[in-house]
Amino acid sequence: MDRKWNLMSFAVVLGLSEVAILILFGIFVDYGWDGTPVSLRGQFLHDSHGNPNYRGPGTSAQELSQSRVSIPDSYSMFQDVHVMIFIGFGFLMTFMRRYGYGGVGFNFILASLVTQWSILMRGFFEMPENHYRIRLDMNKIIAAEFSAGTILISLGVVLGKLSPVQYVIMVVVETVLAMVNEYIVLYLYGAVDVGGTITIHLFGAYFGLALARTIHRREWSTDMFNDLKYGTHYNDLFSMCGTVFLFMFWPSFNAALAVGDSRYRAIFNTYLAISSSVIGGFVTCWIVKNGKFTMDIVQNGTLSGGVIVGSVCTLYLYPWGSILCGLMAGVISSLGFHYVTVSHNIN
Amino acid sequence: MDRKWNLMSFAVVLGLSEVAILILFGIFVDYGWDGTPVSLRGQFLHDSHGNPNYRGPGTSAQELSQSRVSIPDSYSMFQDVHVMIFIGFGFLMTFMRRYGYGGVGFNFILASLVTQWSILMRGFFEMPENHYRIRLDMNKIIAAEFSAGTILISLGVVLGKLSPVQYVIMVVVETVLAMVNEYIVLYLYGAVDVGGTITIHLFGAYFGLALARTIHRREWSTDMFNDLKYGTHYNDLFSMCGTVFLFMFWPSFNAALAVGDSRYRAIFNTYLAISSSVIGGFVTCWIVKNGKFTMDIVQNGTLSGGVIVGSVCTLYLYPWGSILCGLMAGVISSLGFHYVTVSHNIN
Amino acid sequence: MDRKWNLMSFAVVLGLSEVAILILFGIFVDYGWDGTPVSLRGQFLHDSHGNPNYRGPGTSAQELSQSRVSIPDSYSMFQDVHVMIFIGFGFLMTFMRRYGYGGVGFNFILASLVTQWSILMRGFFEMPENHYRIRLDMNKIIAAEFSAGTILISLGVVLGKLSPVQYVIMVVVETVLAMVNEYIVLYLYGAVDVGGTITIHLFGAYFGLALARTIHRREWSTDMFNDLKYGTHYNDLFSMCGTVFLFMFWPSFNAALAVGDSRYRAIFNTYLAISSSVIGGFVTCWIVKNGKFTMDIVQNGTLSGGVIVGSVCTLYLYPWGSILCGLMAGVISSLGFHYVTVSHNIN
Repeated sequence: MDRKWNLMSFAVVLGLSEVAILILFGIFVDYGWDGTPVSLRGQFLHDSHGNPNYRGPGTSAQELSQSRVSIPDSYSMFQDVHVMIFIGFGFLMTFMRRYGYGGVGFNFILASLVTQWSILMRGFFEMPENHYRIRLDMNKIIAAEFSAGTILISLGVVLGKLSPVQYVIMVVVETVLAMVNEYIVLYLYGAVDVGGTITIHLFGAYFGLALARTIHRREWSTDMFNDLKYGTHYNDLFSMCGTVFLFMFWPSFNAALAVGDSRYRAIFNTYLAISSSVIGGFVTCWIVKNGKFTMDIVQNGTLSGGVIVGSVCTLYLYPWGSILCGLMAGVISSLGFHYVTVSHNIN
Repeated sequence: MDRKWNLMSFAVVLGLSEVAILILFGIFVDYGWDGTPVSLRGQFLHDSHGNPNYRGPGTSAQELSQSRVSIPDSYSMFQDVHVMIFIGFGFLMTFMRRYGYGGVGFNFILASLVTQWSILMRGFFEMPENHYRIRLDMNKIIAAEFSAGTILISLGVVLGKLSPVQYVIMVVVETVLAMVNEYIVLYLYGAVDVGGTITIHLFGAYFGLALARTIHRREWSTDMFNDLKYGTHYNDLFSMCGTVFLFMFWPSFNAALAVGDSRYRAIFNTYLAISSSVIGGFVTCWIVKNGKFTMDIVQNGTLSGGVIVGSVCTLYLYPWGSILCGLMAGVISSLGFHYVTVSHNIN
Repeated sequence: MDRKWNLMSFAVVLGLSEVAILILFGIFVDYGWDGTPVSLRGQFLHDSHGNPNYRGPGTSAQELSQSRVSIPDSYSMFQDVHVMIFIGFGFLMTFMRRYGYGGVGFNFILASLVTQWSILMRGFFEMPENHYRIRLDMNKIIAAEFSAGTILISLGVVLGKLSPVQYVIMVVVETVLAMVNEYIVLYLYGAVDVGGTITIHLFGAYFGLALARTIHRREWSTDMFNDLKYGTHYNDLFSMCGTVFLFMFWPSFNAALAVGDSRYRAIFNTYLAISSSVIGGFVTCWIVKNGKFTMDIVQNGTLSGGVIVGSVCTLYLYPWGSILCGLMAGVISSLGFHYVTVSHNIN
């Protein structure tokens, strides 16, 4: 009976979370201006320029202009980010033998849960400016995908260390904390973080590391990881598939919430930085591994260029600046993964 | 000699179908307004508003506005649907050991044939309003992809039960019947079915089930299916790949032919419904399978949210309504797959 | 020591190439008009119509209109091409047993290097008209992806015949020669080649063949290739994945640099031609192989429709013309691959 409960607790917690989401959506969430028929748009306040204004006087000009972005501008970038979250992250981890079909499935479940949950949580922080309603628009669901990215990064750190039900509890709690962190960084400090280096990548990684340290036990370092890290030729191919999808769509990730000419810079800077980190990562891996490529270094090195320019990608970095950032990120990240052996114990 | 003919009949029927398509395209099909140089646009009639009107007085205002949709609006959604048809459906079935590379190849052949064939067949029904010409535009090829979806759903039901040449004959005949059904449902009854739940998913499934019942023989239920359904770790990963691509691009599928603010609602409703059906499907599977995920339930449950809101996705469902639809679809679909054992015999 | 140098030469040459790219980007490259804040746009000259003109009096009207293409028009097509280069080409070759994870990795490295290198090389040819600066815009990075395609086609020919460092040297040299060829074909002869049949596919293939002939040794024909060409069920599935991604996004490849109504024709013509070549290729393969599909024929036949209409896809071919081109390309390409046995020795 107790064992039965342990097994079923995953389904119960996951199911109840979704029911809670359903009820909270019923109370708080409605379509935004774009998805509302013209005849019903009278419910929206307008600012002095006649623009729909559902965030109140505190709305910045930049955010207002975002709310008028047409479908094609944002939508194809949203779909690119969607692929990164569900295919990219899902298959990234398949280089470990045990993290195969079940791992991709867990990625699928947790990302689906967090996208919905984070629409609510982010919405709550913005509600006071928003007539106490949460209005769905394209930027809301792009931001929801970003939050899924945060928890998947943490998931990568604690992979294989928690039970299914613990993963569900982890992501529900982490999403709340990530929103608090985002509120502090973006609203209180006013930091610029369009590609989410601080609020997504750093937060996700440190949350995962902190959690891993808390639950760390000595015996894991020895046998379980050798087993976990063992992969075959085909595991590596699936893993490359995930890595390459993350690589390809990173310019969309960094540019999705940028506007005007800074969106172009976000695309060009990310494109150059991440291409350079591919070179930097592979070169470093070849040197330190004596003419071999290992998946763990390659995966970390090649993608580091996208992370490193995340916060600064809308700035006027110059193209050579992006290449320099990416190249150094690729080299340092690969060296770090090779030499900082504690990461082998924890991660 | 007879055996040789049996073998070659596939190539002969497939080749002759393509030649017939070539001849019919030569007689009936031309580029639409968008793909015609300005100097040649005089051939198009114009309505009283000065819009190009190549469908005659019967054209609805909605369809006219669709014919003016610019490339980016529709094109990225078309490509998403294209990926669903060729990657999503192709790899969905790879969880069966026998349906590997050959199955993906058959999917590739049949979908290529049906996209072209359905442009002709759908065009014939619209020709009387259209000066007896078929004009290619972006919506025509999106609709062609939808028809490919119809036959691939039927294909999933009769998989492994027909010979190659029979598959070709099946899809050629089914496309004609699907167009008749579409004409009855959309034009005679005037049903709203923007995401194709009725004309694509239901028609495809029932056509396949009817065909399977006709050709059903008892011995299939016993040995052949156990063999067909057996898969390995890697089969499951390929299959997850197909499932996740279908999941990701379903909002594009439902929204591709919607216009204006209803396109936004189609995106948001589908996004929420399909995410919820992922949770509903996995939770139900975990409970009925005692803490395991089986590919057949997962594939059906997770995608049911996209199907269920297909017809209604442009309505003002409210976000919680989409979540409720999706959650129930995921649960009911998974329960059905588990308990209705006749489906194991037929499907 | 000498062996150590042989091993490390790859990392040294690749790393130095990237450093050279960094320095040359620092000297020559800046953001284009689209990525420049309004306050800094005074640095651009304007033509008599008030359009930003950073290519001087020699700029054609078509190119000027391209420089104003908004993000969504080009960007989703750029991402489609990006997927073709990194996933499509990367996984295309995985049907050979030895060309698995390492092959996808090499594809990843070389394509990342060439996209950056070709921005410089193509920019140098355009610099005299461009105030001796290279300005990054969306078309520049689409063209850079095309150049990556060129070298990946050559790579497919010489696969398994060069050492890692030789691949790097090959692509660095080939990119320069490809730019010279492009300059001659497009600027001196004024050829129309919007889909790159001449400058990308033909140049890449003949460069690869010439190189293969130069380095050809007799013993390769016998044992090494039997080994190289051997694949498993899963290799074939990965390879189908690459093939289908190339197939799906070919309309974007051919249409990415077209403008106005010719972009629509590029999409429709490529869509019909490549679907028809799928039928032509599979039918021919089935006949010549006695009812079997072999990956090498399938891969070449199915994609030939996209190549064949590359140069002419913007012309008023009529839909039936595209189908005829594609069907013949599929048949001839598959027959060629089956009967011209010298290709087995060289390729």
